[in-house]
Amino acid sequence: MTPLIMYERVGYDGRRPSPFSWRTRYALTHKRVPVEYRPTRFADVQNIQRLSGQSFVPILVDGDRVIYDSWNIATYLEERFADRPALFGAPSAIGPTRLVNLWSDVTLLPLMRRLIYADFIWCLDEGDRKYFRTSRERDLGCTLEEACADRPTWLAAFATAITPLERVLKEQPYVGGAAANYCDYIVFSVFQWARLGSPKNVLTKDSAVSAWRQQMVGLFDGMADIFPGYPQQLIGPDGR
Amino acid sequence: MTPLIMYERVGYDGRRPSPFSWRTRYALTHKRVPVEYRPTRFADVQNIQRLSGQSFVPILVDGDRVIYDSWNIATYLEERFADRPALFGAPSAIGPTRLVNLWSDVTLLPLMRRLIYADFIWCLDEGDRKYFRTSRERDLGCTLEEACADRPTWLAAFATAITPLERVLKEQPYVGGAAANYCDYIVFSVFQWARLGSPKNVLTKDSAVSAWRQQMVGLFDGMADIFPGYPQQLIGPDGR
Repeated sequence: MTPLIMYERVGYDGRRPSPFSWRTRYALTHKRVPVEYRPTRFADVQNIQRLSGQSFVPILVDGDRVIYDSWNIATYLEERFADRPALFGAPSAIGPTRLVNLWSDVTLLPLMRRLIYADFIWCLDEGDRKYFRTSRERDLGCTLEEACADRPTWLAAFATAITPLERVLKEQPYVGGAAANYCDYIVFSVFQWARLGSPKNVLTKDSAVSAWRQQMVGLFDGMADIFPGYPQQLIGPDGR
Repeated sequence: MTPLIMYERVGYDGRRPSPFSWRTRYALTHKRVPVEYRPTRFADVQNIQRLSGQSFVPILVDGDRVIYDSWNIATYLEERFADRPALFGAPSAIGPTRLVNLWSDVTLLPLMRRLIYADFIWCLDEGDRKYFRTSRERDLGCTLEEACADRPTWLAAFATAITPLERVLKEQPYVGGAAANYCDYIVFSVFQWARLGSPKNVLTKDSAVSAWRQQMVGLFDGMADIFPGYPQQLIGPDGR
């Protein structure tokens, strides 16, 4: 079989700063599919555009098929490699898992931005930081630092938003149920983004979410930690 | 087969004001299980306590088994009537559906209270209203009317909270996927509670959630409307 090719965002000194890319990495590893990873910088928009007709990564290339969007990639992999370990358990789990996906993206990620954006910029390649700052500050209507300034408020809002997750993980080991599956990879990717994108913790120590996150980090021989962590050395004494 | 017995909250003039009871009604109807419904007033806490060792309804009685909590009832029905139409599709959908359940209860219901509580009290039996007002106002730290006073703010907060639902229902006909299942019954029960508990709409007209709600109302021969609707006649010109 020709290996699949995955184009994914690359950051400072080989870091992998994209939550969506982590979902797809976990999905591919879960499926035990050979894949060649091709790191792509923020500035490489034109390459991505030429390949897929749009500008976001991850992109999966399977022979002459080009699939973009992490959700589309996951459902494609499930069908294409139906004989490998199931990503969703059963087809009937796909509907509710899609709601969990949108909840992660629409509710959790915007709150997580408020907790890590000011730190996160240092995880990007030096040449990508200006593009990131300009585009994100235009979306936010304020600087990255201003967006993250009121940390106690955003920590409280995030804790409220993840209360359903905290409750479910007190009842069952994984979001998917007895074993981790794509539903867990989606939600974990938000926390993996924060682990790599900021030196500050976003969870209280004794929470069920915190224990689950640790389990997720350990999956697939500790795959979550194969790239360098937060580049603490880049932050000066004034935090810049 | 001895019919099952379900104890459920009854309100003013035979109304059924409990979202949790609606979930279980839909689950039982989906499973095509004969059941005898026993209406229970708020004030009947002692009966419920004696039957189940706790004070919430719905309760399901199946011979000498007594099951309480709508989630426990649903998973019990799925196992007990495994040959009837599946409530969850497949066992692997139960994990993500539990997260959707907790999201509905922990995130959506508290916001819905802010939109309907001041109206909702009129759906209760006259003799239950004082108990309801006292206990709920103690929990809220303010009157029911004060809790609902800033409607534009709560409408906006609710719209933000259901954005993942709006997005998912733009992509697929039901939360459960191609057909309605227990995942839909959970989320719909929040809207059914609002439909019966307030004369005011909580959704914008052209939303995907609004269209889905209409589909849900039509299920099982329009089961959502077999009891009287909001008792508009009880509200005087000053809203009391």
